[in-house]
Amino acid sequence: MSGRLTVIGLGPGDERYLTREAEDALQAADALYGYRPYLDRVPAREGQIRHASDNREEAARAEAALRHAAFGGHAAIVSGGDPGVFAMAASVCEAIANGPEAWRSLEVTVVPGITAMLAVAARAGAPLGHDFCALSLSDNLKPWELIERRLDAAANAGFVIALYNPVSRARPWQLGKALALLAHRLDGSTPVIFGRAIGRSDENLTITTLAGAGEVTADMASLIIVGSRETRLIARPGLSPLVYTPRAIESVSA
Amino acid sequence: MSGRLTVIGLGPGDERYLTREAEDALQAADALYGYRPYLDRVPAREGQIRHASDNREEAARAEAALRHAAFGGHAAIVSGGDPGVFAMAASVCEAIANGPEAWRSLEVTVVPGITAMLAVAARAGAPLGHDFCALSLSDNLKPWELIERRLDAAANAGFVIALYNPVSRARPWQLGKALALLAHRLDGSTPVIFGRAIGRSDENLTITTLAGAGEVTADMASLIIVGSRETRLIARPGLSPLVYTPRAIESVSA
Repeated sequence: MSGRLTVIGLGPGDERYLTREAEDALQAADALYGYRPYLDRVPAREGQIRHASDNREEAARAEAALRHAAFGGHAAIVSGGDPGVFAMAASVCEAIANGPEAWRSLEVTVVPGITAMLAVAARAGAPLGHDFCALSLSDNLKPWELIERRLDAAANAGFVIALYNPVSRARPWQLGKALALLAHRLDGSTPVIFGRAIGRSDENLTITTLAGAGEVTADMASLIIVGSRETRLIARPGLSPLVYTPRAIESVSA
Repeated sequence: MSGRLTVIGLGPGDERYLTREAEDALQAADALYGYRPYLDRVPAREGQIRHASDNREEAARAEAALRHAAFGGHAAIVSGGDPGVFAMAASVCEAIANGPEAWRSLEVTVVPGITAMLAVAARAGAPLGHDFCALSLSDNLKPWELIERRLDAAANAGFVIALYNPVSRARPWQLGKALALLAHRLDGSTPVIFGRAIGRSDENLTITTLAGAGEVTADMASLIIVGSRETRLIARPGLSPLVYTPRAIESVSA
């Protein structure tokens, strides 16, 4: 079977974050599939078909692209950030696992991209400079109880925590509850970073503390980084502070 | 003070992984600082000075670049992968925190890059498709006891685990001990991915299980991903299997 499917990470914002590999992969495909705002970021190429779909239609999008590849085409699915982090690469694997046997013969390539936590961390300094975890706050696909257990384990063990999918219209209370849980484990002075639409013209970075985090507004375009006991802040005259997690840790209690 | 310092992520391998932002930032600097193999990846530009240094000289490199910026220059430090993940951005912040007051007035910019775990994950499918953590196995800068505690917490809470700095000449036994610890928490059939020099011409990807992981050779250029209880594998005729962690988790015991 000659069909191909490429899953391409566009990075968090405009084309500054595209890698050369991603640019080449976008050119090579004969059909692009994706959530409309991501597709809109990709310049048009003559002869290339586009299939825009909605945010919640990951499974249907993956299947449509796989069907195109199974007919011998070269399909590409575009994904914001990195397709491997809470994004389309897992949806494609799930579709192949549950789909017709023939889909297992297709050539599948994942092209990595800058995921949101790396872009937000870069804006703030180096908050992910030591051990960290990435956790989705969405309880659409897992029980809330499990999210709480993971937050608890991560904070106790001293991981910096990057929160993906912190808020949506259907999930208004989860972020507040997560921050309250973390406030029981970590000092109120722990640095917390809210990055919104980083890499876009309307980007916004807010550096606060765990005690003050409840007052910051977040939405679907936000990524939040909660520091560990080690994370610290450098105040700078006339400049935004730098937040970083040192490379060295002296004691086991950290 | 007009000096500037940019910390630039080159991604994991050749120039395919460079973002446009990184290319522009490399051009803009008048002096480049970095570990020699990373500097060697960057094409020469007339009038741009280069200061190559050794692997273990992060602090001295950061200070040298900051001094250049403090004299009004535009210094750039190059970093493999992403500078914010176990790399130079934290060293720069540490140097500023401990350095002369004037360094706090310098403009510091971090340019994110594709970090090793994203490149390895992309080659394997979508092993980081759900909650995961990144942990350095180096006990040069933290007690081994703390590494064990974090491995334990991450495996118990169901995080996929990306292991950075798994082995070096001075640290020959740490990876074996870490895998043995994880084997007490996770099933022997748990997928484990060894990526070595991903993105370079000599790249190598080995997909194995936790029970078989002890037989795979790793070195300083390796990045290892250990699956969670949810991570699974799709066998494919004539192709490398796909490893992925599904987006949905049904039960809390996962």
